[in-house]
Amino acid sequence: MKQFMDRDFLLTTECAKKLYHGIAKRLPVLDYHCHINPREIAENRKFETITQVWLGGDHYKWRQMRANGVEERYITGDASDYEKFIKWAETLEQAVGNPLYHWSHLELQRYFGYRGALNRETADEVWQLCNEKLRQDTMSARSLIETSNVTLICTTDDPADSLKWHKEIASDESFSVQVLPTFRPDRAMQIEKPDYLDYLENLAQVSGARIQSFDTLIEALRRRMDFFAEMGCRISDHGLYFVMCRPSGIEETEAVFRKRLLGELLTKEETLMFQTAFMLEMGKEYYDRNWAMQLHYGCRRDNNGKAFRMLGADSGFDCISDFTPAEELAEFLNALSELGKLPKSILYSLNPNDNAVIGTLAGCFQDASAIGKIQQGSAWWFNDHKEGMKAQMTSLANLGLLGNFIGMLTDSRSFLSYTRHEYFRRILCSLIGGWVENGEYPADEAALTRIIKGISYNNAVRYFGFSVDPA
Amino acid sequence: MKQFMDRDFLLTTECAKKLYHGIAKRLPVLDYHCHINPREIAENRKFETITQVWLGGDHYKWRQMRANGVEERYITGDASDYEKFIKWAETLEQAVGNPLYHWSHLELQRYFGYRGALNRETADEVWQLCNEKLRQDTMSARSLIETSNVTLICTTDDPADSLKWHKEIASDESFSVQVLPTFRPDRAMQIEKPDYLDYLENLAQVSGARIQSFDTLIEALRRRMDFFAEMGCRISDHGLYFVMCRPSGIEETEAVFRKRLLGELLTKEETLMFQTAFMLEMGKEYYDRNWAMQLHYGCRRDNNGKAFRMLGADSGFDCISDFTPAEELAEFLNALSELGKLPKSILYSLNPNDNAVIGTLAGCFQDASAIGKIQQGSAWWFNDHKEGMKAQMTSLANLGLLGNFIGMLTDSRSFLSYTRHEYFRRILCSLIGGWVENGEYPADEAALTRIIKGISYNNAVRYFGFSVDPA
Amino acid sequence: MKQFMDRDFLLTTECAKKLYHGIAKRLPVLDYHCHINPREIAENRKFETITQVWLGGDHYKWRQMRANGVEERYITGDASDYEKFIKWAETLEQAVGNPLYHWSHLELQRYFGYRGALNRETADEVWQLCNEKLRQDTMSARSLIETSNVTLICTTDDPADSLKWHKEIASDESFSVQVLPTFRPDRAMQIEKPDYLDYLENLAQVSGARIQSFDTLIEALRRRMDFFAEMGCRISDHGLYFVMCRPSGIEETEAVFRKRLLGELLTKEETLMFQTAFMLEMGKEYYDRNWAMQLHYGCRRDNNGKAFRMLGADSGFDCISDFTPAEELAEFLNALSELGKLPKSILYSLNPNDNAVIGTLAGCFQDASAIGKIQQGSAWWFNDHKEGMKAQMTSLANLGLLGNFIGMLTDSRSFLSYTRHEYFRRILCSLIGGWVENGEYPADEAALTRIIKGISYNNAVRYFGFSVDPA
Repeated sequence: MKQFMDRDFLLTTECAKKLYHGIAKRLPVLDYHCHINPREIAENRKFETITQVWLGGDHYKWRQMRANGVEERYITGDASDYEKFIKWAETLEQAVGNPLYHWSHLELQRYFGYRGALNRETADEVWQLCNEKLRQDTMSARSLIETSNVTLICTTDDPADSLKWHKEIASDESFSVQVLPTFRPDRAMQIEKPDYLDYLENLAQVSGARIQSFDTLIEALRRRMDFFAEMGCRISDHGLYFVMCRPSGIEETEAVFRKRLLGELLTKEETLMFQTAFMLEMGKEYYDRNWAMQLHYGCRRDNNGKAFRMLGADSGFDCISDFTPAEELAEFLNALSELGKLPKSILYSLNPNDNAVIGTLAGCFQDASAIGKIQQGSAWWFNDHKEGMKAQMTSLANLGLLGNFIGMLTDSRSFLSYTRHEYFRRILCSLIGGWVENGEYPADEAALTRIIKGISYNNAVRYFGFSVDPA
Repeated sequence: MKQFMDRDFLLTTECAKKLYHGIAKRLPVLDYHCHINPREIAENRKFETITQVWLGGDHYKWRQMRANGVEERYITGDASDYEKFIKWAETLEQAVGNPLYHWSHLELQRYFGYRGALNRETADEVWQLCNEKLRQDTMSARSLIETSNVTLICTTDDPADSLKWHKEIASDESFSVQVLPTFRPDRAMQIEKPDYLDYLENLAQVSGARIQSFDTLIEALRRRMDFFAEMGCRISDHGLYFVMCRPSGIEETEAVFRKRLLGELLTKEETLMFQTAFMLEMGKEYYDRNWAMQLHYGCRRDNNGKAFRMLGADSGFDCISDFTPAEELAEFLNALSELGKLPKSILYSLNPNDNAVIGTLAGCFQDASAIGKIQQGSAWWFNDHKEGMKAQMTSLANLGLLGNFIGMLTDSRSFLSYTRHEYFRRILCSLIGGWVENGEYPADEAALTRIIKGISYNNAVRYFGFSVDPA
Repeated sequence: MKQFMDRDFLLTTECAKKLYHGIAKRLPVLDYHCHINPREIAENRKFETITQVWLGGDHYKWRQMRANGVEERYITGDASDYEKFIKWAETLEQAVGNPLYHWSHLELQRYFGYRGALNRETADEVWQLCNEKLRQDTMSARSLIETSNVTLICTTDDPADSLKWHKEIASDESFSVQVLPTFRPDRAMQIEKPDYLDYLENLAQVSGARIQSFDTLIEALRRRMDFFAEMGCRISDHGLYFVMCRPSGIEETEAVFRKRLLGELLTKEETLMFQTAFMLEMGKEYYDRNWAMQLHYGCRRDNNGKAFRMLGADSGFDCISDFTPAEELAEFLNALSELGKLPKSILYSLNPNDNAVIGTLAGCFQDASAIGKIQQGSAWWFNDHKEGMKAQMTSLANLGLLGNFIGMLTDSRSFLSYTRHEYFRRILCSLIGGWVENGEYPADEAALTRIIKGISYNNAVRYFGFSVDPA
């Protein structure tokens, strides 16, 4: 029996151990997609309790606490940090097989030096240990990033954002990690939202463009892209219910947009027409800037109306959707391809059943403009566990070139989550090491080193064109 | 090589063996969902031949015989019991990897003491052995239940049922196993069926309510629920093609129902409106009674028209459906939640692709009113095999709290099928034991004992609130 | 660590090794579905370079080269054979975990005696070795087939085809392998294609039937079926976007067909009505001839418009579709069943999520007219890898009788691809051997021999009724 989460955690063969300890472990981390608040880096935030770090905004954990019958007061309510932590410890015990079990203990091991198991009995000990440790300077936002061997971080940012904190970080020579913005214009696309016109006003002001038509909306976003590009942005991101393709003529699009500007409600079909036009314009712009386009879809958000009214979005009430039509995704990619403007694209569906569709559709739009131009994104959100990662990588390997995969990202709000890259790399090394051990791929050290380094770090550097050295 | 289905069958690690032999094996059985005929318990039925027990009504086996090219005469026809058994033995040989292979041999081992393999050559020997054994008193319905260490059984019952046999069993002090009814009002909902009005008449009579409106239909069912509750019922069950949510106003619902009372045909949309209204009313009632609501969906029934006309329903002509829209399921649960009346719910889709949708949607409606309030039901029917159970539990573990899972049920008509609980527990112990063995969960005896006991027995006791002691 | 692709490649247990080396390895090959050009057999084609054999028409490989950023010139363009081969070697290195890695190296081992790994460094050596070898007589089309122990091949043929090359092969007594046509009337069904009327003209001429109605279209095809039957045909094949069932009356069908004859465009609904009628007529004919009907669906073709205009169909721009409604498939099979004319059918969906639907739906239409009458086809195209085959066979085993499975086919255009049968058999033996090793099936040599022989060869002989001896 292996010891609980020891040195060889998840490394199931000798070859896996060699690949991980010999290559993957020491590689730097490039976290090209996360939701970290750049202000916390700029201000080098510190935390008072482990509850702040772990339970402050982590709706993954909130969900599990609710599934354990914990009252909301101990989750997002006014219970004390200590009480909340105890409830979490009790919940975690039941989470056998859950990635949170592993993530939590990896964080306890790597950042707090605690190698035991957190449960009701050890909760007090862990509470004290962590809080003590958090008072040390090594536990500030910047220190955590640096000791995690991170070289570059991409945050997720609204086009209307001033990127003030990115500027501040960039100009501070005492901190050498690159913190770059990602262009995520979801709010500019969410024409169905009640506050859409307010948003447009905000965007108009920031961009200095008068938004009185679809055309000028795009112009405003173009200006923001220019600004984001100056700030080092190389990536966009979209959160879509599904990837739609209901193309229309420019007059129709303008008419729909005008209707919305007048405060009228749009039909579902009009909304989809607008969104399609919007996405096509964005895609074209990304292509021209050689940005990568991330498409995140397959999520149904805010399913619990009561909870949404009480706690708002991103509180743990989202689920996987099964409306992810391959046909429209294919048509959307082809529409950009026909225009000669299909950018590098990364496709992430929240529904793991889509692995095979994505893997095969990606293969239809590869070309010589980039190595691995169309990527199947890393196992995302609800799939971000051992089985999900294995499934995504196995599917990718079966249908495309795993060797060109750009690998892991944290998608996280937390400064402790870089251990998820470790988690990913262990699983990667276990997968490839297993194949080598079984004689399914040669024990060719040079090739394996190149592949492991590539997926862990170098492929992302090359794919996005970041100005950091390959490892 | 392990011996065929020996003591350590399916137990792949030392820890799995310890968990199974040390904990799971001895736990009692709570079979909270089955289709046993309570009359057979009341009358303490005995069987003359193994064919009666095995092939009398088991459409799982019938399907495989047809797939082996066996003529219907030897399946549901007038061939002799012996001939039918021989055909089954020949079929079973081909069923390598099929759960029926394991279920059949577990039953032969546990109830008949036969440890060989059933095939054409051994068929005569097995035939004789089983039939001899069946003549013993230990092989009566009640003895089988008792020797299987069962403490409580929930049958599946129509609201119009008199529950006469349940009463008889309850009042018989010589039999201590609780046999409780489950409220399954499918026929009251199947407004599209030709015999619907006949059914209503029956229901009206039994309930003493005049059914002349949707409102009085619900009133009739309410009375039956009261009666079922008196008889110990704690659970409802619904067999749905898919979980629909096409809400309408009460006037519309009444109008649709009136139309049907007049003998008119309903449109598909009207039918769905009625069904939605019906399900919402049921859900509210279950909530008020603290009953659990089981939703079984994703099945397309009676696909073979000729066979249906010849043999009727439940004869082995059903298949998995792929129309199981996450959107409507989410809206249905939310509709009850908005009313403050979402009962404890157990979601079972026959389509294994829905595991991830269910696992994440369940997480959106958990609250402090019950531990594990929304459950992903055990791998059901066509998924009730090693791979299906592993997939369901792994998905549940990845997305929720496996530790709170209420576990296995037989869904069976047979008194020999309690060995499926053994099958399940072996797979459970193998899964969790494997994680411990790999260092993915601590070898914490107390925690593991609690988890294994919980999933095998105690969680169901707590969840449904049965009056039996936890193990 | 096992050596790279050695004698025991993919054989993970002792029992697996015994089953493969003791039984499966030596069995002949029956390739009942492929896309080999019969002319190449008739003319006993030889190849000048490994590039011709490997990259001449293999869009599986083309896709991977594009995913590696290779320019089209080196894929389908005018680069030299040597340059193309080098690009392929470079690509293959990245294809860790991809079936092409295994297929390519199996071919190098079995046909060229090369046991190393192909990569950029070894490319020149392999290039020379292969090209030298290709000059030998043992490397002609016929020799390759014969040394691969093939007894029978089914090609895929249009009804209008003269089958001239089949005739020539059949009459050549120096070549004893049967090369039979398969009836694939896709073009006669593709009423939406611009060149449909041209095709009809061609078909009319070849069949000697004047096609002036739906009825005469079917008559023309009937004549071609008679001709194909004379030439030994026992199987039909259909490539469908999805299996549709939108039945209509004969008048409607005729009206739609007439409309098309007049050169008018059909609506989507009219097209589906025609296609349904067409498929039902075909099914009836197949039943009457005791032919097997292959349904291939779940593929979205030619997704990349630009590439399609440049390179045409079958150039590597197809993907898996997720529009494969179980409901229409069920209704289609039932429609034929209601007519008493459901032929032996083999269902292949390109979407691996459909495994469970197919496995359970097949069970609804089995009867005594054939053993395993409705088959789930072997893992197809994008699923034709270790995981896909395991998933298909495990699903089949869970839901039906694996022992009656008719097994593997190459679906290939290449004379080197018979090693895919070896690949399949290794995976089959590993799967079943693993079960035996774990005590899940008895170590019954006679039963295992029968099962392995059946799935590898004999079941297909029996199922299709070919005039070759069972092994």
